[in-house]
Amino acid sequence: MVNVAIMGYGTVGSGVVEVIETNGKKIDKRAGMHINIKYVLDLRDFPGDPIQDKIVHDFETIENDDEIKIVVEVMGGVEPAFTFVKRCLQAGKSVVTSNKALVAKHGAELLEIARANKLNFLFEASVGGGIPIIRPLNSSLTADEIEEVNGILNGTTNYMLSKMFYEGADYDTVLKEAQANGYAEADPTADVEGHDACRKIAILSSLISGQQVDFEDIYTEGITKVSAADMKYAKAMKMTIKLLAVAKREGEQIQAIVAPFLLAKGHPLYNINDVFNAIFVRGNVLGDAMFYGSGAGKLPTASAVVADIVDAAKHLHCTIMIDWASEKLELQDRSLMERKFFVRIKGEPEELESKLHSTFGDIHIVRAGQPGEFGFLTGVMTEGEYREKAKTYDNIVHMIRVEE
Amino acid sequence: MVNVAIMGYGTVGSGVVEVIETNGKKIDKRAGMHINIKYVLDLRDFPGDPIQDKIVHDFETIENDDEIKIVVEVMGGVEPAFTFVKRCLQAGKSVVTSNKALVAKHGAELLEIARANKLNFLFEASVGGGIPIIRPLNSSLTADEIEEVNGILNGTTNYMLSKMFYEGADYDTVLKEAQANGYAEADPTADVEGHDACRKIAILSSLISGQQVDFEDIYTEGITKVSAADMKYAKAMKMTIKLLAVAKREGEQIQAIVAPFLLAKGHPLYNINDVFNAIFVRGNVLGDAMFYGSGAGKLPTASAVVADIVDAAKHLHCTIMIDWASEKLELQDRSLMERKFFVRIKGEPEELESKLHSTFGDIHIVRAGQPGEFGFLTGVMTEGEYREKAKTYDNIVHMIRVEE
Repeated sequence: MVNVAIMGYGTVGSGVVEVIETNGKKIDKRAGMHINIKYVLDLRDFPGDPIQDKIVHDFETIENDDEIKIVVEVMGGVEPAFTFVKRCLQAGKSVVTSNKALVAKHGAELLEIARANKLNFLFEASVGGGIPIIRPLNSSLTADEIEEVNGILNGTTNYMLSKMFYEGADYDTVLKEAQANGYAEADPTADVEGHDACRKIAILSSLISGQQVDFEDIYTEGITKVSAADMKYAKAMKMTIKLLAVAKREGEQIQAIVAPFLLAKGHPLYNINDVFNAIFVRGNVLGDAMFYGSGAGKLPTASAVVADIVDAAKHLHCTIMIDWASEKLELQDRSLMERKFFVRIKGEPEELESKLHSTFGDIHIVRAGQPGEFGFLTGVMTEGEYREKAKTYDNIVHMIRVEE
Repeated sequence: MVNVAIMGYGTVGSGVVEVIETNGKKIDKRAGMHINIKYVLDLRDFPGDPIQDKIVHDFETIENDDEIKIVVEVMGGVEPAFTFVKRCLQAGKSVVTSNKALVAKHGAELLEIARANKLNFLFEASVGGGIPIIRPLNSSLTADEIEEVNGILNGTTNYMLSKMFYEGADYDTVLKEAQANGYAEADPTADVEGHDACRKIAILSSLISGQQVDFEDIYTEGITKVSAADMKYAKAMKMTIKLLAVAKREGEQIQAIVAPFLLAKGHPLYNINDVFNAIFVRGNVLGDAMFYGSGAGKLPTASAVVADIVDAAKHLHCTIMIDWASEKLELQDRSLMERKFFVRIKGEPEELESKLHSTFGDIHIVRAGQPGEFGFLTGVMTEGEYREKAKTYDNIVHMIRVEE
């Protein structure tokens, strides 16, 4: 038997309890021992809930109980989660977390403490919810140099963009709908501004490079400026718009970005709709692979947390190797990233085409029935080049990057 | 350093050597030690190939060399692979294989020998080529009761069906094209009759049940009867036809089948085209997940083999738990499987509809411009019921199962 403490009895925490109750027999068999939830740390009480007997309000009860070998951190936020997790590892307890903010900021440091104490710090649920991606990157794709990770990592924005694409709805309407359905929070900033996806791609970038990628260094653009008109242009080009979180190897460097992208119909991520997430991975020998599933939600996320508990139980006395050192990785300068750009501009193609041609080179005009404006697609150029060229126009309505 | 022997220098074997040469530095880092290829067993010589120095013709050279800790079996076929693998495990060497025929037939027994000797028997590459699926099932989806595994597990037939669907080509034409492109073998039986997919779903069924599923027990129907006309009906119903290998939990039982299925546009497997494979997994808490990638090919398959070598190197003295006992699982009787059926029948709807209605209950007539015939879609019924009802008609042209 192994004793487990859960810190936080919110959505994920109660999901973890539910999953262990539902599939306990199978889970115990796979862990090779009984997984016993001894404590649940929460500031609140839950009278009437069977968990009430296990509720503790004081972190030190967990920290000081040598019987606790695995601690599940599902409180969210960087503090006090970081302090608690660190103290758990120092007290000889392995830690499992779903907390992307904590992992993105302190992952390397916590892995180091875990290693030094022959413990594990596992965080499968921090990216892609129920989709196995962290463990496959660490233990399945070990023969490859990972050249690209490209993900739809946020369910809220994917739901919104899918609605906008398929129903022609505008941003404000779908945001209200998403909030009404519980897919978006009252304050949707973290989702719609891309902050959530940014933390997640920071974690994946760190894992494929083996070094610390600071999320603050990743250029992040949300979906708040994506409009029904943009979707019309996308359709005219047989494309769709998705919020992508991309990390690519470019020679010796890694580039990373979170932004809305125009995506062609043949792209594996084109068909990922609604709240689903997917992560496309390209390896230098594997070729293309994709992992798809529920990127959030109580039970899918809890499924990933519990799988980490099982792994921690199977490795109580040895550390599962995760290649992520504290040494900071300098990302490639964004101005050097190369791609095509789609630009909406005020005016008529007949008047502007030759000027645009002389600025941007070969362009492809796109019409979508929007009055007083049109769109054009550039050839491949760097972000720096694009910015330089676009500077000379004050009539650009919107630019969206293109992923082919 | 760990010494490795490769048995078989064919496509996969030479791929393994290439992958280790290409990514050796990264691979060694992840394994925590240098992976050294000491021998390559093959009946042939390869003069001029740098591998020639390592070629041995006698299995016993490998068996008797205590320095060899990991053996890679990529010869294919059940014998002599089985005898060699067994003797390697008995001689204290972990074994990695890509051989689905071997794993489907003797997986449970070989796992048992490996366990008894504190060794590993790993077979990621035996299903889905480069797609990580065996390891995710064993170590990532451990919190779930797996309710369904549904895969496009054969690249050759998927390439052929994609061509038939998108180009309207007929079976014989696409087979010749597939053979010309190297996607189908001169004798395509194993692929087109579904034998290959059957071995693979037998392995996955064994893993989700924890017991031995004999591939001979799985009803298997290939794609040889799928015609250009069938594809026309599929299109008329906004569906496509895919060769699916399905294992589903039905109460306490597992059902398994390999057959061409009509698949609706919203199904996650609908868009898996060409030689790509994908495996859809449904867990009782995870919900739906899908794994997609190159299901075959030299380097993708070798990537999975080398990832297993890395795992074997990381676990030289302990067995990675794989839940697959020798005890045979009796699959659910096929006649009890429930689904809709699509039927092509000679005659005119006007004449036959009321008789069909009284036999099959509510049906949905489908026209695809085929002279002298039409199609209809039944409601949900068991295979046994369908067979019983269909028996009274001698004008049925073709039946295809429907997966919704």
